[in-house]
Formats: sequence, structure tokens, C-alpha cells
Amino acid sequence: MAYNVAQKLIASHLVVGEMVPGTEIGLRIDQTLTQDATGTLVMLELEALGLDYARTEVSVQYVDHNLLQADSKNAEDHDFLRSACQRFGIWFSKAGNGVSHPTHMQRFGIPGKTMVGSDSHTPAAGSLGMLAIGVGGTEVALAIAGEPLYIRMPQIWGVRLTGQLPPWTSAKDVILEMLRRHGVKGGVNRIVEYYGPGLVTLTAMDRHVIANMGAELGATSTVFPADDQVRTFLRAEAREDDFVELLADADATYDVTEEIDLASIVPLIALPSSPGNVVPVSEVAGRPVEQVVIGSSANPGLRDFAIVAAITKGRQSFPGLSLDVNPSSRQILQDLTKMGATLDLIGAGARLHQSGCMGCIGMGQAPANGSISLRTMPRNFPGRSGTQEDSVYLCSPETGAAAALTGKITDPRDLADLFNMDYPAITLPEFSSVNLTMLEAPLAAAESLTVALVKGENISSLPVFGPLAERIEAPVALIVGDDISTDEILPAGARVLPFRSNVPKLAEFTFDQVDPTYPTRAALTRDTTGHMIVAGANYGQGSSREHAAITPRFLGLRVVLAVSFARIHWQNLANFGALALQFTDAADHDRIGQGDVLVLDGIREAFTNDTEIIVRNTTRDETYSVRHELSTRQIEMLLVGGLIPWLRARHAQGEPAIGTAE
Amino acid sequence: MAYNVAQKLIASHLVVGEMVPGTEIGLRIDQTLTQDATGTLVMLELEALGLDYARTEVSVQYVDHNLLQADSKNAEDHDFLRSACQRFGIWFSKAGNGVSHPTHMQRFGIPGKTMVGSDSHTPAAGSLGMLAIGVGGTEVALAIAGEPLYIRMPQIWGVRLTGQLPPWTSAKDVILEMLRRHGVKGGVNRIVEYYGPGLVTLTAMDRHVIANMGAELGATSTVFPADDQVRTFLRAEAREDDFVELLADADATYDVTEEIDLASIVPLIALPSSPGNVVPVSEVAGRPVEQVVIGSSANPGLRDFAIVAAITKGRQSFPGLSLDVNPSSRQILQDLTKMGATLDLIGAGARLHQSGCMGCIGMGQAPANGSISLRTMPRNFPGRSGTQEDSVYLCSPETGAAAALTGKITDPRDLADLFNMDYPAITLPEFSSVNLTMLEAPLAAAESLTVALVKGENISSLPVFGPLAERIEAPVALIVGDDISTDEILPAGARVLPFRSNVPKLAEFTFDQVDPTYPTRAALTRDTTGHMIVAGANYGQGSSREHAAITPRFLGLRVVLAVSFARIHWQNLANFGALALQFTDAADHDRIGQGDVLVLDGIREAFTNDTEIIVRNTTRDETYSVRHELSTRQIEMLLVGGLIPWLRARHAQGEPAIGTAE
Repeated sequence: MAYNVAQKLIASHLVVGEMVPGTEIGLRIDQTLTQDATGTLVMLELEALGLDYARTEVSVQYVDHNLLQADSKNAEDHDFLRSACQRFGIWFSKAGNGVSHPTHMQRFGIPGKTMVGSDSHTPAAGSLGMLAIGVGGTEVALAIAGEPLYIRMPQIWGVRLTGQLPPWTSAKDVILEMLRRHGVKGGVNRIVEYYGPGLVTLTAMDRHVIANMGAELGATSTVFPADDQVRTFLRAEAREDDFVELLADADATYDVTEEIDLASIVPLIALPSSPGNVVPVSEVAGRPVEQVVIGSSANPGLRDFAIVAAITKGRQSFPGLSLDVNPSSRQILQDLTKMGATLDLIGAGARLHQSGCMGCIGMGQAPANGSISLRTMPRNFPGRSGTQEDSVYLCSPETGAAAALTGKITDPRDLADLFNMDYPAITLPEFSSVNLTMLEAPLAAAESLTVALVKGENISSLPVFGPLAERIEAPVALIVGDDISTDEILPAGARVLPFRSNVPKLAEFTFDQVDPTYPTRAALTRDTTGHMIVAGANYGQGSSREHAAITPRFLGLRVVLAVSFARIHWQNLANFGALALQFTDAADHDRIGQGDVLVLDGIREAFTNDTEIIVRNTTRDETYSVRHELSTRQIEMLLVGGLIPWLRARHAQGEPAIGTAE
Repeated sequence: MAYNVAQKLIASHLVVGEMVPGTEIGLRIDQTLTQDATGTLVMLELEALGLDYARTEVSVQYVDHNLLQADSKNAEDHDFLRSACQRFGIWFSKAGNGVSHPTHMQRFGIPGKTMVGSDSHTPAAGSLGMLAIGVGGTEVALAIAGEPLYIRMPQIWGVRLTGQLPPWTSAKDVILEMLRRHGVKGGVNRIVEYYGPGLVTLTAMDRHVIANMGAELGATSTVFPADDQVRTFLRAEAREDDFVELLADADATYDVTEEIDLASIVPLIALPSSPGNVVPVSEVAGRPVEQVVIGSSANPGLRDFAIVAAITKGRQSFPGLSLDVNPSSRQILQDLTKMGATLDLIGAGARLHQSGCMGCIGMGQAPANGSISLRTMPRNFPGRSGTQEDSVYLCSPETGAAAALTGKITDPRDLADLFNMDYPAITLPEFSSVNLTMLEAPLAAAESLTVALVKGENISSLPVFGPLAERIEAPVALIVGDDISTDEILPAGARVLPFRSNVPKLAEFTFDQVDPTYPTRAALTRDTTGHMIVAGANYGQGSSREHAAITPRFLGLRVVLAVSFARIHWQNLANFGALALQFTDAADHDRIGQGDVLVLDGIREAFTNDTEIIVRNTTRDETYSVRHELSTRQIEMLLVGGLIPWLRARHAQGEPAIGTAE
């Protein structure tokens, strides 16, 4: 049978199920990626699971999120993560080494491999012909422990690229075009696979941009073939030996198809406050801009910085405008500096920040309320910048550079006239400044057993949740609309991220931007009835942070009733013992009021018989039909309180320390 | 009469009084410097004073403190400051342009001029033969408005330098030697003046290091002559025309004298938690280090970064150790990059941060509790790093670089053997990369009047304090010991600094590290009796922040009884209407208990007759004799509630908008 790239990746790692879209499959996982904001929890989970040593081929812990260090907590997390890496056989990428996604691609990515990462932009590794999926931390912990990853077999969405990008446009505009066409839900339950003659002009790092921000389409992942561009990339990284060609079969087919003529792409921009609000830059040109931020895993390549340097070289950032540059990795900054481009950026007035995610996850760089900030980042959800009334636009480096010079939103094609400038040609070095010294290799297994975890005072143990009750009668503590992101459920940012290892404290920030009274109200239900949340479509979109499931659960959440769920958050809810149910009739969402008491009865039987579940609204004397999409394995987990109790129970029954599920 | 440099500077600017140590003099002020953490208040004060246009020769507002931007407040402060600069005729140095002290020296410093700055390290400009004094923001506002600066005429302390520094030592070790000999109170009421044959080997930027950290001696200022080294510096900055020779007369004398043979200097280090705890590095060698931070105005020169680059070039920061580098200005980073040293630092694993103060004022870079952090900064007061249980050591760039390589405190002279290394010779460029484009010049006076201040929601108006009562009967809300710094009265750091323009919110952090119950307890007295604070010697040492006077005053502080006061804080208390009194018998400090109710009666009469004041302790039925050192002008101010009400009252009486005081 003819396979596309995604099918080849799945088929070669399939340990459970069949490649039938919509059915659960289990995949062998070769690599894992964790970052510090989610990684501390992953390490605590490994501790709770009693893991001896990582069973993956490569697992890497990056420190790229919590870099501001406003107090001792960040540094103590870094110390903890380093000790956990030494304990569990994991690579440790030190603070300053760079953002996980480009660094992983440069140093560890291998065509044909699978990876899970506790970061929603993990699919960036699809640029190398890997199948890389963002999941909750618990699932990464399981992968490190050798367990398969369970997902619903997605549809494969073939996007055929033709032509070549015109001057002043770049890969970012391609993914913005996908978002313009399909919005933030267009990729749900799909793997996007790019193919066709247009591919030949896109470097591996260009493909990283597209694969990375494919997360914003809601896609399970994005894959590219491993072709000559990938070979060229790996050669530049001194890893040509790791190259394995991986191409779609000539007569491969796709579940869904699409075509983009690259020659027709124009500079695009996502308006506040969703990556899906995409319009041509020319439509909003002229709006005043106070900040331009270049960086993040959505535009991480040397080229993405070098083009900004070339455009701004010998010119100046506009008065009153802050041009912030966040190198994506130490290596890229090294190459940029060798090229002379760092000097050009400094000369143009850039604030050159340390290598890391920085403002992309609200770790500093917050703009003034109401002022426009243009960013080459992947997300502009409300408040993610750290500013309550923010106005963040997402764009290419070219569009960012244009605004940095003019102080207003500017179609970069207009720079040709404004500054009498040709579109700069960027020549990248044939070989990168490969430098492994900020990466600590795992200890040997025997030595690792002697390492003790270094836990600072802010690192608390995981809360334990109880089994699912047979009958739940609980009030609706919160009603929200469509497209609620995990940023809105649990904010990131400098104020909140430092508490990522301290669930009780972290819980105080739950739904902070939606309804700050929620934590107090919800906590009242914690030791009594628990509570429910009613949501619209695409509930839990965005970042993979499992904390967005844990903290409501910690505050007493038992059930979420939604029109539909974003995939990762849906899994996270199950992993932490909260029941995710979907309305059969979406209109029922609007029939429920905050404070209404809902009753679910006969839950186990409903699961067993796989029947529809009836929710009774005792306040309004109505009933609603809901259904679940849980697998047998997830139901088992839920009944005992989530993934960790389930694994603990298996231990108690004398099953292998870490067995194969289902 | 033969004058030393300090006397020449004073004599040429004396508008009130005589140069008799201990008596109040008034000085004409040529330049002012403000940074963003204190500058917002200065600008609000200019607004309150109704200033039309700056009357100084040069006033510059720098943005170097609040650069993390965890939320909208920092960016809004920057916008406010920019608008205020445009409104009041002040230069604006944009975020990213660099730390005030080295930037001012490079771009604006002129031998023979006077300057006040709302930053305690303002004396750094003494490196160019200026008389530069750190004061509270209110006094800077007055200087901008054309008022003289009033101070007690200090003693002039002549420090004769002979010989030449040995390899692996540098200017930082000279000022550490002064601190080793004299501690943090050794310079109180003195201007330190360096002279002698040893001067010839110290560049202007070396002298900056010594003058900057002279603040830690408690000195009023530090001055150097304007000699050929200063000419060389100004030539490199393309400002040789600004050079004016300023040397001590051949037979000049000093009130106090001292000698340092530079050849005898060894690498020194200040142990936690005072810049005065200085020992030779060799005495504490071997202690494990987790962080090394290079930067700040105490080691701001190109040389200070280049020497670290040269020592670490081709080597690596120790595993588990964070090497943080904070370029002091955009210009210095530009030169460092041109030299290739930035590339060396990146290669050695440095985390290269944006240009600014950063960790020096607790704006990020906080270490783990209990771990050792070595910094080339000027201060290590407890908690200033942002970490409650911090362990910060202060040292030279050479000593910092040594620890970065070995992971433990290391005498840099041992690097010769450890790494088979000669002390690197640094060749600095003859001309700096002068770049004015991040400095906005003041608007012309007529145009400035049309500018409106841009006030974000976090910028509140100044609180107004009432007149001093004739009788004060109030409880002692807090008793503290010796050497309480303004960091302990009101912390800096990422958590607190963003509220610098919002006094009610800021007040909640008062004495946070000493007694977090103080704000609540004190606030209870605010609208009733008020309260007193009893302190030991050198109360209010350290930073010039006037917020350390304003927030306790806002919470009801009426009187501080102390064994002695640090000069700037003592002035700030008077400026904001709090009475600063000194015990005649220091032992009385220990006789008072927290909660004791003290009574001061007949305050006006005591001031008028300049008699001793008797404090009655009604709780213990004791009395104590106290005295004040206030000038007639300060008493006038205090009686009406502080400097701003005093100036307002003068307005009301039809005196010129801004008159000449006393």
C-alpha cells in the first residue's frame, strides 16, 4: 500500500490499533522533549512512578521558559531539573542554551523518529520528517518510562505547495495563510503534511516555522518529508550521519487535500487576539506600533534574525518604539554574531535579550496597555503578553522589521520605496557553530541511581485525586464561550510561571483573566460536591500545559461539559481524573446558568454500556444528552482518579513497574 | 589659597555658605541624572512644582532599571518618562541604551561641572573631575528647576595612590581595599579625593569603578582630577572639546589623608551581606559557586567585559553554574562585539542579557536560596538579589571569571597555573562606537509646552503630607539595629520596583524583609497618632531611593530616633516631613521597646531655641535626650510638611514660581 510520510511514521511505530482515523492507536516514542515550565512536573511524575532510567532513545530537558529569576524559585527549579536529569538519564540543556524546539532540531532531531513533548509547539520537529506531538506532561513522563503514546488516529491533510515565495515574504506568511484559510480549529484531529514542488525552496528551518505554528491550527502535528533540504540542514549541524531519507510514496493519498501557490503569498498579519485573525498587512498598515519583538520558536532560524539585521542595518529603530530581539539559541546567536548581524542589530537600537522564550510566554517584554506590539511569535491570546489590555499582532520578521523602522504597521514590500532598498539576500554559513558544552549528557544508569533530587522550597509534591464517583451532583461554577485557551484557564507570564511546581499556590491564578472569583468559589466545593464547568467549542486550545487541568481539578472540578474540546487539554483532563463530556446538541450550552446544579447518575454503567449520558439540571428541571470520546484505557484511568493512581494501582497488583497499557 | 580638586569644584559653584566642614552650603547644579525607578517620581514632582522648562545645562532621564516588563507597568512608565522629558526639556535615554552612570560619563560628563542624580551611584561621574552627588528625587527635581543643592560641607579625604596594580587585580580591588579598611561608614560626611603618582595608570573608566562604589563607603562623593587620562577618554568618545583640565593645586591639603600602594593590592571579595565585609579572595577560595554575574555600574567599562571574555575564551562556564553578562550600555556592547569579545563570551556559555542594571537591583537573575552568587556589582545587602536567603559576594571581573571557569571561589592569580594562562592584556579601541540614536534630545522650550504627560493607570499622584504637630505622642512601631539599608526599608527587585510610581501599593512592601507585619501595624496609626521608628547607627544606608522615606511616612511615620543616619536618607526624611532625631547617648536605643509610647513636646520651641529635645517614654517612665542636625531651611520645610508643601506655600505667598531657597 502507498503511504504518505505521516502514515510511514505511524506505521513504523504502531504498537496498538490500526491506522483508521478516529480510532485509538498506540505509538512507540523514540524521543521526548520537556521545557522547564512543564518539566518540573514531569520529573515529579517520574519520581511518583518510581522510574529507574529513561527508556527512550533520547530525552532532553530544556531550560528556556523561566529565565527571568525574579526570586529564588526559577534558579531552584533549574537546580531541581538538573538533578532529575542526572537521576533519570535525561539530557540537560542549561539556561541560556536556547529554546527547546530549534535547539532540539539542531542537536537531536532525526528523520523517521517519533517524539512527544510537554510543549504544544513540539510538532516543529516535523520539519525534519519526524512525527512530533505536543502532549501533557504526564504523557511525556509515561513515554520516558517506555509507555506508548495513545491518540486517536488523525486524518492526514495533504497540503500541496507549488511555486516560490515572492520577495519580502517568508515561511511565516505560509502558515499565516493556512490560519487565514482555516482558523484555529481547522487542523483539529488532523496531521498536516506538506508536499509538492514548492517544497524544494523551503529550507528545513523554514519548514520549522510552518510546523511549529501548525499548533495554532489545532493540528495534532505537522510533517514534512526528509529530503535534500533536511540533509543539507543536518550536514550544516555536523550530523549528516543522522540523515535518513523519508518521502511519501509516489502514489500516496491524503484524507483531505489543499493547495497553496507560494507565488501568490502576500505579507500577512494576525490581529489581536487570536492567531486565526489573519489579514494582509496592507489592510492594517499605518497603525502606530510601540514594540516589535523578534524571536521565539515560531521564527527561530538564523535567517529570521539575519533578515531583520539586514533590513535595519545602518538605520534606527523608531523613537519611542522598543525593538526587542530574543535569540532562539546560543548557537544561533553565535552564528549571528559571526556573520556581523548581531552588531548590525545592536547598531540599529535593538534590545538584545538572553536566548530563550522570553516575551513569547509573557516572561517579560509586556507592552503598555492599549499599545500595539508586533511579534514574530506564534500566539497572541488575550493577556499572554503579560498586559491585561494588550494588542499583540503576529507577523513575519520582514513585517516586524518594517514596523521597527517606521513606527507603524507597514507592508514590508513598501520598504523598497520607503528606504530605496532591495529585498536583502541572506547567505547563511555552510556550517553552524556547533557547540555542545551547554548540554549535559545523561549519567550512566548505574551512576544515576546514586543521584538525589535537589528540591527547593517551592517544589511541592503532586496532589493526589480520588476515584470518579458513581453519581455527581454539583453546581456549575463557571460558564465560558468558544475557543477558551489554556492561557485563559491558567495564565503563563512572569507572575504565574514561577509557581508551576507548586499546585496549591498556582491554583489561585486559575481563570484569572476570565473570572478572578473562580478560585475562591471553586475551592468551596473542593471537599464537598465538587463543581462543573460549561464551555463552548474548542475548549482548552493552545498551550499543552497540563496545569490547566490540574489546578481546576485541585479546586474541585469533576466534570467539564463542552461543545467540543482541544485535543491536548481533553487528554489532560482525563489524565487528572476530570470527566470531559460533549453536548449532543450544542445549543444546550446556552440553556445552563452559572450556579445551576447538575446531576450525572450511573456513570460506570454509562461507560460500560457506552450509552449516551443524561445530565439533569435540577435547578431548571431540564435534561441534556451528552457523550464522551474516552477510550477503554482512559475510562479505566478516570474510574480510579487519573493516570498516576491507575499506574500506582497496577503496581499494587504486581504488574510490571511500567507495563504496556491496554 | 591652595585648593584640592573637590574644593575647586565647590568654590566654583558655591551660592550659599562657606566651605567650612559641617556647615550647610548651597551649590549651583549644572547637570542632573535620573533613572526610571526614581525618575517617575521626579517627573511627578516637576509637574507638582509647575516647572516650565529645565534650568540646568543638561538633564538626562535614563531607562535602565525597570526593563523586565512582567506586565504593562514598566512600559507605561517608559512612555510617561518620555513624555515628561519632552514636556520639561530633558534628554531621554531609551530602554536598551544602557545604565545611567557609564552612559552619562560617555555622552555628557564634563570636567569641572556639578551634578545631582536620583541614584546613589551618581558620584561615578567624579571619575571625570565632576562633583556628582546622589540625592533624593525631590532634590533632583529642585535642581532641574534651578534651585541650588543644599548639603553640609563635607570633609575632603585625600587618598594618595602610589605604585601600579599587579596582574589579576583591577580598580574594583582598590575600592574593595578602601571598604576593607574603612567599612560602609568610613566615608560618611566626606568627599574622597584620589591623587598621587598611582593615578597615571588608572583610566577614566577604572576611576569610574572607584568613584561609583565610593557610595558604599557612605561618602558624599568621590572626585578625581581631570588629567590626561580624562582627555584620552573624552577623545575616544569624540568629545575632546569638552575636556577642561582640573588638577589640585600643588600645595593643596586635605582634611584627612590616606595612602594606598597599588602594588600591594591583592584580589579582594566582599562577603555577604555588606560591601564592607571585605577579605582577600584567597581566604574564602574553594567555596562552591552557582552563579557569576558580570556587569552593573560598578564595573561598567569595555575593559571589564573584555577581560572576562579573554579569560574565558575557548573555555566553558562550569556545569551547573550560570554565567550572566549584563552589558552596561548599547555602546559598550557594540564595541565589545566589534572586538570579537561578545562572540568569545557566547562561546564560553554566557547568558548575554539586555543592556541595563538587571540583577544589580534585583531585576531578575535571582540565585537559588543558599547558593553562592559572585557579582561585579556594588552591593550585596540581604535580599537585594531577589532571593530571601541569598549569599552574594562582590568582586572584580577577574575574580568573577575565575569562578565561572572553576565553579568555586578562586583567586584569579591561580588561573595562571590552573589553566596555564598569562594575565590577558586588553587593547581597547582608540575610538568608541559613538551612537546617539537611542538618546532623544529635549524639545525646544516653545514646543515642549504643547506636550501632554502620558500617564498609565499605575502612575498615581504624589501623596500630600500635613504639617509637623507641636506635640507628638505615638507608639514605636519598629525597632531596628545598625546599618539598616534603604533596601531593607523598601526593597527593590522585580516584585516591588514596578510600583515605584504608586505609593499606596508600594507601601505594602515597606520593611518587607525586616518585619512584614510593619505595614499593617503602621497603617493603623496613619490617621490617628502616627508612629515612630527606633534605629541604630547608619540608618538608611545604600540606595538613594526617596521611596524609603515616602512609604513609611505614607503609613504614618512621624519621627525616626536613630543613633545616626546615612546622609541621603536623612535628607529624604526631612523632604517628606518626617523628623529625624539622633540619640545623645547611643545606649538609649536599647532601652526602648516596640510598642512603647513616646512623647515629644514643644517641638517648635525646641527648634527655635536650638536646644536639646527631651523624649519621654510614657510606657517605661524614662526620658532620653535627642538632637537634630537640621538647617533652618529644613526646619521650615518640616513645619509645613516637607519640601513640596513648603514650595507650594511659597507660591501661595506670591514668591517666584521657583525661587532661591534660604
